[in-house]
Amino acid sequence: MTKERAATRLHLPAALVAGVAVEIDAAQAHRLRHVLRLGPGAMVAGFNARDGEFLCRVAELGRNRGSLVVETRLRAAAPEADPWLLFAPIKRLRLDWLVEKGTELGIGAFVPVMTERTQPERLNRERLLAHAIAAAEQCERLSVPDIREPAPLPQVLAAWPADRRLILCDETGGGAPIAAALAGLEPGVPAALLVGPEGGFAQTELDALANLPFVTRAGLGPRVLRAETAALAALAAFQAIAGDWRAGRRR
Amino acid sequence: MTKERAATRLHLPAALVAGVAVEIDAAQAHRLRHVLRLGPGAMVAGFNARDGEFLCRVAELGRNRGSLVVETRLRAAAPEADPWLLFAPIKRLRLDWLVEKGTELGIGAFVPVMTERTQPERLNRERLLAHAIAAAEQCERLSVPDIREPAPLPQVLAAWPADRRLILCDETGGGAPIAAALAGLEPGVPAALLVGPEGGFAQTELDALANLPFVTRAGLGPRVLRAETAALAALAAFQAIAGDWRAGRRR
Repeated sequence: MTKERAATRLHLPAALVAGVAVEIDAAQAHRLRHVLRLGPGAMVAGFNARDGEFLCRVAELGRNRGSLVVETRLRAAAPEADPWLLFAPIKRLRLDWLVEKGTELGIGAFVPVMTERTQPERLNRERLLAHAIAAAEQCERLSVPDIREPAPLPQVLAAWPADRRLILCDETGGGAPIAAALAGLEPGVPAALLVGPEGGFAQTELDALANLPFVTRAGLGPRVLRAETAALAALAAFQAIAGDWRAGRRR
Repeated sequence: MTKERAATRLHLPAALVAGVAVEIDAAQAHRLRHVLRLGPGAMVAGFNARDGEFLCRVAELGRNRGSLVVETRLRAAAPEADPWLLFAPIKRLRLDWLVEKGTELGIGAFVPVMTERTQPERLNRERLLAHAIAAAEQCERLSVPDIREPAPLPQVLAAWPADRRLILCDETGGGAPIAAALAGLEPGVPAALLVGPEGGFAQTELDALANLPFVTRAGLGPRVLRAETAALAALAAFQAIAGDWRAGRRR
């Protein structure tokens, strides 16, 4: 028996059980048929965070629909670290990029927050979720990050889970350098990163944040970073120092 | 005397000496006149890595040319860390992002290298340099990174400066997690990061690299990262753990 290889990975929210058929959506059918030029009998991988990842055989493939039959399991479901990213919405292309890269780097939830100096930007959650799914398929995650509804920062802070550490990326230099700030965290503690808008936080916001017991202030070096650069750089530093990069590559 | 504020920052390669006039180029003249709607008398900042940063007064502003008179010095020139980034050229938009973000994160030189599995991509050095200058102006750097000519990886390695550490981002899991790998470096050592093409390095390339005395292998966690994500994430981890983020924000 030769080992069959999956031509691509598809996120399938339905239950994945060996021997059972699952439907794929119109975009997935289009991708298999017209982009990858696959037909019935081709092998793909289907995954979700609850069931893990399975080799699946294409059963039917129409113009706007299709179905797969789930075959053998490739990976069991496993708990994943889930740092949250709290960010002030930014312009569309930079936001798309942030969601793609943040998904690759392991974000569990994108939490848009409105701060005092946030410029109102329309945020299309459906488009952002499509970017997150595509990035999850590409980077071999099992989970897809949540894309939360935008909410005012004080409202998000008022409902904060007591056990989750919030790392405030403070562009005014009010915190310790991020490596020192992260080294002080309890290993494996649930975490979130908060990055301000292009105009920075208001002083009153910084003062209020500094008084919260779950907040750690961290500095991101000597240069002025764009909001999306700060978010991804802080996330990379977090994963390297305190997150799931410490364990190395899954083989 | 009120303190005058600069409306924007311009990279000016000419010598900056108080009281002396300097020419600006056509793109800068366009930006001052048509984007920022400034005229003669307006104040801008002019900078370069050799002379530092000066407040400058707009003297003349035509359609395609203009001149400034250099006034008081705002910042002295200072040595800057200069990590290099060795990368296999990628598609245009992703490369533009890489140069913008890498400049914000402090790259000293972008070094395009051709590896065995590098897809040939045209690389427009002039356009990339324009992106690097715009990012340097925005992020308050004094220097602008070099954009080197693409060269085969073995040629770059053959001419390698003995005192510069090369951190190989090894997607096969061959190295220690990057935080552990970086913690072993001599503080302040000149460094470079090497990130492979989308298809990864060939095994022969990895074996040859592992044998070089200046190479440290480092792993970037459990997920499969796009080339530009790997480069920026590795750079952020480097700056946080071993680079100029350790010192905190310049005030």
